[in-house]
Amino acid sequence: MQKADIGMIGLAVMGENLSLNMLSKGFSVAVYNLETERVDAFVNGRAKGKAVIGTYSIKELAEHVEKPRKIMMMIRAGKPVDIVIDQLLPFLEAGDVIIDGGNTHYLDTMRRAKKVEERGIKYIGSGVSGGEEGALHGPSIMPGGSDGAWPLIKPIFQTIAARTENGEICCDWIGEDGSGHFVKMVHNGIEYGDMQLITEIYQIMKDVLGLDADQMSDVFKTWNKGDLESYLVEITGNILSFKDEDGLPLVDKILDKAGQKGTGKWTAITALEEGVPLTLIGEAVYARCLSAMKSERLIASKVYQKKITKPDLKLAVNDWINDLEKALYAAKIISYTQGYMLMKASAETHNWQLNYGGIALMWRGGCIIRSKFLGKIKEAFDKDPHLFNLLMDDFFKEAIESRIESLRKVVTKAIAQGIYVPALSAAINFFDGYTSGVLPHNLLQAQRDYFGAHTYNRVDKDGVFHTNWTGKGGSTSSTNYDI
Amino acid sequence: MQKADIGMIGLAVMGENLSLNMLSKGFSVAVYNLETERVDAFVNGRAKGKAVIGTYSIKELAEHVEKPRKIMMMIRAGKPVDIVIDQLLPFLEAGDVIIDGGNTHYLDTMRRAKKVEERGIKYIGSGVSGGEEGALHGPSIMPGGSDGAWPLIKPIFQTIAARTENGEICCDWIGEDGSGHFVKMVHNGIEYGDMQLITEIYQIMKDVLGLDADQMSDVFKTWNKGDLESYLVEITGNILSFKDEDGLPLVDKILDKAGQKGTGKWTAITALEEGVPLTLIGEAVYARCLSAMKSERLIASKVYQKKITKPDLKLAVNDWINDLEKALYAAKIISYTQGYMLMKASAETHNWQLNYGGIALMWRGGCIIRSKFLGKIKEAFDKDPHLFNLLMDDFFKEAIESRIESLRKVVTKAIAQGIYVPALSAAINFFDGYTSGVLPHNLLQAQRDYFGAHTYNRVDKDGVFHTNWTGKGGSTSSTNYDI
Repeated sequence: MQKADIGMIGLAVMGENLSLNMLSKGFSVAVYNLETERVDAFVNGRAKGKAVIGTYSIKELAEHVEKPRKIMMMIRAGKPVDIVIDQLLPFLEAGDVIIDGGNTHYLDTMRRAKKVEERGIKYIGSGVSGGEEGALHGPSIMPGGSDGAWPLIKPIFQTIAARTENGEICCDWIGEDGSGHFVKMVHNGIEYGDMQLITEIYQIMKDVLGLDADQMSDVFKTWNKGDLESYLVEITGNILSFKDEDGLPLVDKILDKAGQKGTGKWTAITALEEGVPLTLIGEAVYARCLSAMKSERLIASKVYQKKITKPDLKLAVNDWINDLEKALYAAKIISYTQGYMLMKASAETHNWQLNYGGIALMWRGGCIIRSKFLGKIKEAFDKDPHLFNLLMDDFFKEAIESRIESLRKVVTKAIAQGIYVPALSAAINFFDGYTSGVLPHNLLQAQRDYFGAHTYNRVDKDGVFHTNWTGKGGSTSSTNYDI
Repeated sequence: MQKADIGMIGLAVMGENLSLNMLSKGFSVAVYNLETERVDAFVNGRAKGKAVIGTYSIKELAEHVEKPRKIMMMIRAGKPVDIVIDQLLPFLEAGDVIIDGGNTHYLDTMRRAKKVEERGIKYIGSGVSGGEEGALHGPSIMPGGSDGAWPLIKPIFQTIAARTENGEICCDWIGEDGSGHFVKMVHNGIEYGDMQLITEIYQIMKDVLGLDADQMSDVFKTWNKGDLESYLVEITGNILSFKDEDGLPLVDKILDKAGQKGTGKWTAITALEEGVPLTLIGEAVYARCLSAMKSERLIASKVYQKKITKPDLKLAVNDWINDLEKALYAAKIISYTQGYMLMKASAETHNWQLNYGGIALMWRGGCIIRSKFLGKIKEAFDKDPHLFNLLMDDFFKEAIESRIESLRKVVTKAIAQGIYVPALSAAINFFDGYTSGVLPHNLLQAQRDYFGAHTYNRVDKDGVFHTNWTGKGGSTSSTNYDI
């Protein structure tokens, strides 16, 4: 019987393209899809003439993969993954490895790894980023999971993964149990932030500077040759110059209701659980929610007559564009700083040993947030593997200091003109808060102690204090609020 | 055997004060606490000479409460509640009611109500707000739970609850299963927002206007006679004038690290789950997290030399204070608007029939967020029970329109001067976003379709579209991303 190097379950866009990527690199792939007509379509279509084996049941798939079997799932996250694992287990043996390459929540991966490992089978939760194109030509791959699983899958993953222009491979082992999916989640959260920032910059160009799509395309294409060089800036340039059938910019025909698949939300929720002020990504997620409330917004826009100041011809457009470029870069630094703060906090919670520089390198190519900028993060952690915060790195300190006033200017001008800039605002506010040795939360602690006896610390002496602010009530403090 | 009207488990500050409140209104209360020395301390101390029965075991407590028994828990939320319920159940009979008055997550209350009801016992999850003082003199009480439970507890709850100056009772039945605790959670989230807003305003007064604590106290005390009349503004005035033993303002001695008990976090997480842009409360929660990172902030403040512009003597302080008052009121409207959006969304998810005006009335007195302002929300829902958004009400429209430019001015000036104003910024950004008929998320949808084949809608025709932006790759869209 013909046996493949790896089995692939799920032939939607990501599963198809990853399989094609493996096939093009000389690996044989057995494929299976619940709707089996997609198996035929793939085998006789895009994969025709390649080392592909079409299979029509989970059992048949398992039979057609070399032992120890490597079976990868590229299916919708959630219940389907549990179902497929249960279907797979009877046909697997100790030493086989199941890989979930979907956008699975890392806590689910932790649970599943535990369950599968009890049967002697290995489990990998792997982030795969790069979308349709990335999957086909070289994605960023972020695997984590069972001890001993990595050597089995490393030859395939590191061969199909993206490479930087220096040939560095954008795939390495992340760590224990759910850490691969966790890092992919943070990647996606950062992607939400990057996209929201670009979207805000775009609106300022469009509504304040009055640029048209082609002009904006030129700006983004120019930026992509500088510090902002990145996939998202590149495709923004391409999108803005893309014409619809009638020759007009397609972007102007697209409805302004953003969708989401949930990983940004998970990142924001994880940050709340961990107590990390991941404000920029949080605002980016909320902004998608707000954009989706199109019908309410239309009503509200009539009730509250909005007047965005029309472009001022005396405006120095080039000065603005220069400030926007700096603002975007500064805000990016802050967003990634927050993302790294979250990774540090969660690594501590779950006792993971994360390689922070390595993560930046994995994101350096192949994935949606790939950028020149990530190379600088890699360098920062190479210089100091124990760097406690990105803003403390000399390169980023200089980068921020030379741009923060542009960010400040852009935010204040945008807000003054009625432009919605939640992520840019979150960036400047975080910077101002994080760099404040003293914040006004002494008042907030006083309020909490006043109404709830929650106690406070003092600046001038150690200990926990409760004040009877009103001279009424008891002296029982809330620290005793227990059974 | 002597029997009490109600049993109370837990004698920390809230349990003690609620019991004293009941006792003072003529109800007899049997009390129990795990550390039984607190029972003795209470019975022989603050409750001495009142109709209190000290008990030293759960069994003894159950024996000393009239049937159908009403047993209230004022204990730490979480595992302790499950433990106490399990300890209670053997001593209860069908028709008895267990009340959880702690800060329990509403999803836990839904789970527990189901479990307890299976034994024929009723369950109430009740929000209780007002802190130490409120519990003693009249809290806002927000009960929800089992069918038929309300009549059993109504006479006690409505007697001990706060009343507005018109005598309206700040306690009514909220609705099904976890809705009482849900509404209390949103209340607490709003409290986080209100407190963060006041904190930001305080910092502007202190660091931009250069006012001292007594001067600020006067401002807040004056504001408390106007539209901003509220408990939190009142206590802020009192806190700012409170002197330490050395005669200096106590507030200046308090450490600026905010604590939290989790309900604000739950509110922000629920909003993310429901897809509601609850940005102001979200930022308030993140701000507490940031404030808690004191040691990092101290380092960062040295690395990044911060210069908050010193007070400008030419500044028209009174104009600033006037703008700050308006900004605070406008931001409050926006925060409550977001809170009500969340309640609407969750009510739909859980199929609750919430009385939105009634909720505003319950919050009108007794609780931490009590204010004149909430009377206006009550009026808005009285006028139109189906009001889909608070900003659509005529009163609030006028209130916002006469103040939004002050909010805009305060935010831009604060950011320009390096002041951390995340909640005020969230307010103005939400307003600008919500009142935008067109947002720039057409670009974001184009990006999602470009890299992930996520498809988009168009403004000029119905349907779901996917564009092959690069001319490369497949035409498989992500809607097929399934097994």
